[in-house]
Amino acid sequence: MMTPKRHVYLDHAATTPVHPEVFQEMRIVLETHFGNPSSLHFYGRAVKQRLEIARGRVARLLNAKPEEIFFTSGGTEADNLAVIGTAWALQGRGRHIITSTIEHHAVLDTCEMLSQNGFDVTFLPVDHYGMVDIDELRRAIRQDTILITIMHANNEIGTIQPIKEIGKIAKEYEIVFHTDAVQTAGYLPLNVDQLGVDLLSVSAHKIYGPKGAGALYVREGTALEPLLHGGGQERSKRPGTENIPGIVGLGKAAELAANEHASESRRYRKLSEKLIQGIRERIPGTRLNGHPEKRLPHNVNVTIEGTKGECLLTGLDQRGIAVSTGSACSSGSSQLSHVLEAIGLSPEKGAGTIRMTVGRSTTVGDIEYVLDNLVDIVNMLRRDS
Amino acid sequence: MMTPKRHVYLDHAATTPVHPEVFQEMRIVLETHFGNPSSLHFYGRAVKQRLEIARGRVARLLNAKPEEIFFTSGGTEADNLAVIGTAWALQGRGRHIITSTIEHHAVLDTCEMLSQNGFDVTFLPVDHYGMVDIDELRRAIRQDTILITIMHANNEIGTIQPIKEIGKIAKEYEIVFHTDAVQTAGYLPLNVDQLGVDLLSVSAHKIYGPKGAGALYVREGTALEPLLHGGGQERSKRPGTENIPGIVGLGKAAELAANEHASESRRYRKLSEKLIQGIRERIPGTRLNGHPEKRLPHNVNVTIEGTKGECLLTGLDQRGIAVSTGSACSSGSSQLSHVLEAIGLSPEKGAGTIRMTVGRSTTVGDIEYVLDNLVDIVNMLRRDS
Repeated sequence: MMTPKRHVYLDHAATTPVHPEVFQEMRIVLETHFGNPSSLHFYGRAVKQRLEIARGRVARLLNAKPEEIFFTSGGTEADNLAVIGTAWALQGRGRHIITSTIEHHAVLDTCEMLSQNGFDVTFLPVDHYGMVDIDELRRAIRQDTILITIMHANNEIGTIQPIKEIGKIAKEYEIVFHTDAVQTAGYLPLNVDQLGVDLLSVSAHKIYGPKGAGALYVREGTALEPLLHGGGQERSKRPGTENIPGIVGLGKAAELAANEHASESRRYRKLSEKLIQGIRERIPGTRLNGHPEKRLPHNVNVTIEGTKGECLLTGLDQRGIAVSTGSACSSGSSQLSHVLEAIGLSPEKGAGTIRMTVGRSTTVGDIEYVLDNLVDIVNMLRRDS
Repeated sequence: MMTPKRHVYLDHAATTPVHPEVFQEMRIVLETHFGNPSSLHFYGRAVKQRLEIARGRVARLLNAKPEEIFFTSGGTEADNLAVIGTAWALQGRGRHIITSTIEHHAVLDTCEMLSQNGFDVTFLPVDHYGMVDIDELRRAIRQDTILITIMHANNEIGTIQPIKEIGKIAKEYEIVFHTDAVQTAGYLPLNVDQLGVDLLSVSAHKIYGPKGAGALYVREGTALEPLLHGGGQERSKRPGTENIPGIVGLGKAAELAANEHASESRRYRKLSEKLIQGIRERIPGTRLNGHPEKRLPHNVNVTIEGTKGECLLTGLDQRGIAVSTGSACSSGSSQLSHVLEAIGLSPEKGAGTIRMTVGRSTTVGDIEYVLDNLVDIVNMLRRDS
């Protein structure tokens, strides 16, 4: 097998490399300050201090108070805690939940589980851009609606939802509002008051932090039952010895995201546009999935007629280019993803879909290399079929 | 404040430093191999391979099959998954659970939660050594008993439970048997077949691995419902992007524990005995808590009359010595721990209790330094009171 000329990682929506500055801070707690933050002695206090610095940094990224930040093992646990924690806490008031058909599986499957356990869930459809309809949302609200959970932006097609408008409606009806911001942290400004959310999930490894750490923002006064039971950490909302290396890494990643997301996002937007334009000009029969403007700056999701996603992925992989078909989490499956289905693609029409997500390391040269190789592979695949 | 002459960490039951070899393996996945193991491209495959190496290493530590190992965010989540996962899976067959009064809060509080949700829990008492009575256990078994969960060894007083005998009884009555082995991994041999357990929890940071990673052993064919819902990772028993640095660290720590626990434990035993003997000889009015022989090799839990645990901890801390009062997880509290209460200590009689747990870095010189300072502090405290 030939050695690729270049390695180009275009799967930043699946996971990102750990930023060197993040690693340096993690290194200190992995090599030196190893105490248990619950311990009262020097070793414990030194670590407790770092835990609270990390909490402050995540709070600043979200414009929240430090005491509104609860660390979890990642985005999936944050989403589960938000949805199940609200359901258990408010089941006496009602058992109706509103979500959308294009949520991440961490929300979707959790809602499915609740619907099998006495809850009633409305899965709002989306239009062909993957956008939730505000009027449909309003019509879905009932007396017993206790939670609205709609993602900030979609992980596959990048469509950004009208979170502020949904936040206003949730407030009007006094319904708890959760948003999964795993894909928007580090790309869009995240101000919990401006967004009007009560609960918001973030994940470290999507913003150049380590895998295994995330956080749930919980607005002061929001009722929430814990998922785990034990030693009382995180004010009993999330017990278990804190993942200090992960949390310290998340804290530093949040600080970098807060400082640099605006400039980085502008750069990502240009790279994505170059990639989209190149595909349009050089490959006939393509379609950009997701909203043309209201989309994540680093996301390019395209369907290329007469190809299959797996074949594109394999061909690109052999040339050192990493992309995704469907969502990373279910990329082992060859079925059309639930998101592509929700925007109206059939298994036939959507088969040739790949997602390319640029990031910190991506250069203009990378995009040119990807375009040249993609053109080449598409020509080969179309010739063979 | 004076600078201590020496730093002596005697709180290894609360947490351990990350072993340099563990850090080196974590470093590779933090600095270089950052892919998402669910991704099908090169970056994903390189990490997936490391994930499975770690699974194999944990399996070997426990004499289990790799496919029986499920990674979690730590011991607390492993315990919660074992207890709640079994309860949800088997509630159709029965709703009675047997545990003990000296379990870790991760089991105890989870059982309390279940007892408030339609389950009936028997909390077996222990004798003054902290030992569960096998006959009492047998008498507690009912037609509707679905789970026995008894820890392998206690985190505070070090008493080792008769797990093999309990395993035989559980098998005889066809009841699922879980043990929390967080405190015994790395100290005692852990053979899931010899122990006769169906579920067993371990934690990385207690065996010189990082915080934020643990595993649950699930015997093939054991029914278990997941706690979290999402992307299907860990064969849907524990979804969410895997904490690769943590899991890789756990894997290496498990390998080191498997290779070195026998020789290290012999060394710990000698250090503990030297500490216990020194206290007995040089401080009148002391009592060793826990079983005199059937105890963890690194654990010294003593009550010193005429003192208070917090004062001992503070005095030792000022001299660079880290110890614990009660259990680390609730050491912020000044109440007598539930374990000391369970072995029959009153708040007055048990007030002067500290736990000292030796580890890899502990030397004979450390023990002498601790003894000299402990004698000094006790004399001061007794003079003042």
